[in-house]
Amino acid sequence: MSTVIPHWLDKQADLSPNEVAVELRDGTKVTFSSLAENSRIKARQLASANIKKGDHVAILSGNSIEMMEMIHACSYLGVVVVLLNKRLTAYERKQQMLDAEVTILITEAEEADLREIKQLTFEGLEQLEASKEVQLLEEIELSNVFTMMYTSGTSGFPKAVQHTYENHWWSATSSGLNFGIHKDDKWLIPLPLFHVSGLSTMLKGIIYGMPIYLLEKFVVKDVHDAIMNKQVTMASVVTVMLQHLIRHLGEASYPESFRCMLLGGGPAPESLLLQTKEKQIPVFQSYGMTETASQIVTLSPGDALRKIGSAGKPLFPAQLKIQGQGLNEAGEILVKGPMVTHGYYNREEANKKSFDNGWLATGDVGYLDEEGFLYVVDRRSDLIISGGENIYPSEIENVLLQIDGIREAGVTGREDMEWGEVPIAFIVTDREIEIRDINLFLRNKLARYKQPREVYFVDQLPRNAANKLVRQALKKYL
Amino acid sequence: MSTVIPHWLDKQADLSPNEVAVELRDGTKVTFSSLAENSRIKARQLASANIKKGDHVAILSGNSIEMMEMIHACSYLGVVVVLLNKRLTAYERKQQMLDAEVTILITEAEEADLREIKQLTFEGLEQLEASKEVQLLEEIELSNVFTMMYTSGTSGFPKAVQHTYENHWWSATSSGLNFGIHKDDKWLIPLPLFHVSGLSTMLKGIIYGMPIYLLEKFVVKDVHDAIMNKQVTMASVVTVMLQHLIRHLGEASYPESFRCMLLGGGPAPESLLLQTKEKQIPVFQSYGMTETASQIVTLSPGDALRKIGSAGKPLFPAQLKIQGQGLNEAGEILVKGPMVTHGYYNREEANKKSFDNGWLATGDVGYLDEEGFLYVVDRRSDLIISGGENIYPSEIENVLLQIDGIREAGVTGREDMEWGEVPIAFIVTDREIEIRDINLFLRNKLARYKQPREVYFVDQLPRNAANKLVRQALKKYL
Repeated sequence: MSTVIPHWLDKQADLSPNEVAVELRDGTKVTFSSLAENSRIKARQLASANIKKGDHVAILSGNSIEMMEMIHACSYLGVVVVLLNKRLTAYERKQQMLDAEVTILITEAEEADLREIKQLTFEGLEQLEASKEVQLLEEIELSNVFTMMYTSGTSGFPKAVQHTYENHWWSATSSGLNFGIHKDDKWLIPLPLFHVSGLSTMLKGIIYGMPIYLLEKFVVKDVHDAIMNKQVTMASVVTVMLQHLIRHLGEASYPESFRCMLLGGGPAPESLLLQTKEKQIPVFQSYGMTETASQIVTLSPGDALRKIGSAGKPLFPAQLKIQGQGLNEAGEILVKGPMVTHGYYNREEANKKSFDNGWLATGDVGYLDEEGFLYVVDRRSDLIISGGENIYPSEIENVLLQIDGIREAGVTGREDMEWGEVPIAFIVTDREIEIRDINLFLRNKLARYKQPREVYFVDQLPRNAANKLVRQALKKYL
Repeated sequence: MSTVIPHWLDKQADLSPNEVAVELRDGTKVTFSSLAENSRIKARQLASANIKKGDHVAILSGNSIEMMEMIHACSYLGVVVVLLNKRLTAYERKQQMLDAEVTILITEAEEADLREIKQLTFEGLEQLEASKEVQLLEEIELSNVFTMMYTSGTSGFPKAVQHTYENHWWSATSSGLNFGIHKDDKWLIPLPLFHVSGLSTMLKGIIYGMPIYLLEKFVVKDVHDAIMNKQVTMASVVTVMLQHLIRHLGEASYPESFRCMLLGGGPAPESLLLQTKEKQIPVFQSYGMTETASQIVTLSPGDALRKIGSAGKPLFPAQLKIQGQGLNEAGEILVKGPMVTHGYYNREEANKKSFDNGWLATGDVGYLDEEGFLYVVDRRSDLIISGGENIYPSEIENVLLQIDGIREAGVTGREDMEWGEVPIAFIVTDREIEIRDINLFLRNKLARYKQPREVYFVDQLPRNAANKLVRQALKKYL
């Protein structure tokens, strides 16, 4: 028997009708009861647009209260939400929508390049009458899929990670068991809601009955202001953001009530950790991925300097092991727990490869020390993390190989002061090709942040005995 | 696919090895790592006594660290724990063990009256060598049954409520969402671990990583001392205990860090609530039963006086409705949620009657006001609550009717300064019977607290048109 709970937004609206659910930079405050009411109206408008239970609906939007309501609206209809990354090109988005079998795209603004897919803007939806007939769901069946998000992984072709309500529920409650749940908590979201970090925090707000301070995007002074002056107690950031924040902080210090800076997106440099210690910033390093519905491993500030470079220990309901290795020996990281996705959408092959008896093979490499702390040595598939966005070299290589005259392509990350890392490409060509032509081709196929900063022409690529590209060796060319 | 988590005690011992798990009145402090270690040793000793996965093992004990370890030991073996009420007679306990198909009884002291059932004392078990072969469970499958506890209900014959790990997990996390989870929390257990209130708090300790202050039993000055001097922040009590505590408190007041007095066992009198307000005691009234794995409805102190007499609102993952009634109209209370038992052990008939599509018919009567707050009007089957123990009139009547010469019997509760209520019996006899003989008979069959304080001889009992006993009308005889 699948576990059933009342619809979480209705429930919180019943328990805390007049408490603040969302606070915006302009001072707007939205209560749980009005968040629920507006989401229910949007659900009825979606129903008027013929969207019904089981449909896949893509949402393309920057952070806004409307986007939040739209996501909740889908849950009232039993609709699966496909969250599109705003930074992708129209070509990439189209690929994802076709793959996810999306019925309709809901956007904050019309997408001229995506005319083949049925579209409805937020504003267009507002014009529709709210259907009176549709029966909105009053319960959530936890085993149902709620959201999908794309990630590329080793294959180079993006796959949709399916998140059930159960994944999100356990992610929120596990995080609560780890950080505690305080009455005066307010969590800042400076990260996109189309990423799992932003989305999972939004859902924590609903499940805890906690206000979310929502930013449209990461702007240093806005995040700084939220922590200093808006009683924010917790915030999720990536390394590069933390660096900017510390610079902005200068000689000042955060209020004592600010109790958690949850740091994701790769291990933090030691120098940065020392700075956070000096400035008494309560940084919690973490490890997670879209597949784990946000962080699954967290390091508390108490251990931060004793265990420099570690991502910590798995959350209470989560398990972790290193494939076939002993203590202090690196191997593939396997994770298990009720917050881990049950699989990629329509990817039988990849699912067989990645899942074994509840254990997900992350593709990342790490080791455990004698106390069970995780050290991530290498992100999967030579993952490049650039300003919090994941970049998969194989995806860029696949696009480069579509260019007539390019025979081989290899991509790796180069350290970058601003972004942490940026992608660099190496190509072997059959004939002379202009860099300009390459860039022109890439512009339509790859999001800006994925486009290689430099393209080098080489005679051959480093390969192992099995003729497999050794991306790590590319770094020596830099 | 059933949800699987790591064994919760191992997990907490890994996350917080040196934190205090249990604190006793004599100052003893037990860490999570030693609680886990000792429980694992006991599990291996149980294995040496031929106890294996799937067995039903009865535990008969007052509150102690050994009892806690024994309960956890069973979880490492996949054994179902049948928790026996120490206040029952040997006869009642035997009935329950036969009904629950118990293989062995583990007791703190040998039970002379229970020789027909295989017994092992805590001390006897200590003598056994810990089996090296047995593979202790490293994971918990949430759908498995962990504990059973007896409750009588309408039939008058006790039924075992089965609690899965899932029921306990959701009870703990729901309570955490309601009360918050603070780093400095310490929860006092003055109630028996063989009742769901005590057991559920013990498991909260494991799941939150929170110390439990364990008392062997409720003694006013010990509870007072724990709150005043032992940094206890939360405590579970029943109404009669709270009355004693307030009297003991006198002109003093509890420390500010004491943040929750969770009050169960029937609605609190208005005068008592006014006293708690005056003394600034943060009382949370609640409604729950063994079937809901502890409280399922809670009223916050903020609403306590605005909603006098109300038990509050259902916890986040729980639902509640009144059978077929509108606002402010009383009807049977139905509850649903992942903390609600899936059924009684081996009671197909009762299960069919009580459960419908996930909804449990509690037998209790109540109504909802316009804001959705629950008011319990009548506990099920004229339930008598005496000092926190549930007494079912039908159970006492059944025993009275076994006495030769008693033709009819009716039992009801009478108000009592000390215990809240006490049971009173009315009998119709065929011939002259001595009160002394009745009491002699009852002494072996009924726990002391269930034995009627008075037995009245009457000519007839109040019955309705269908000839059914109207217990409420018995009160008029008092």
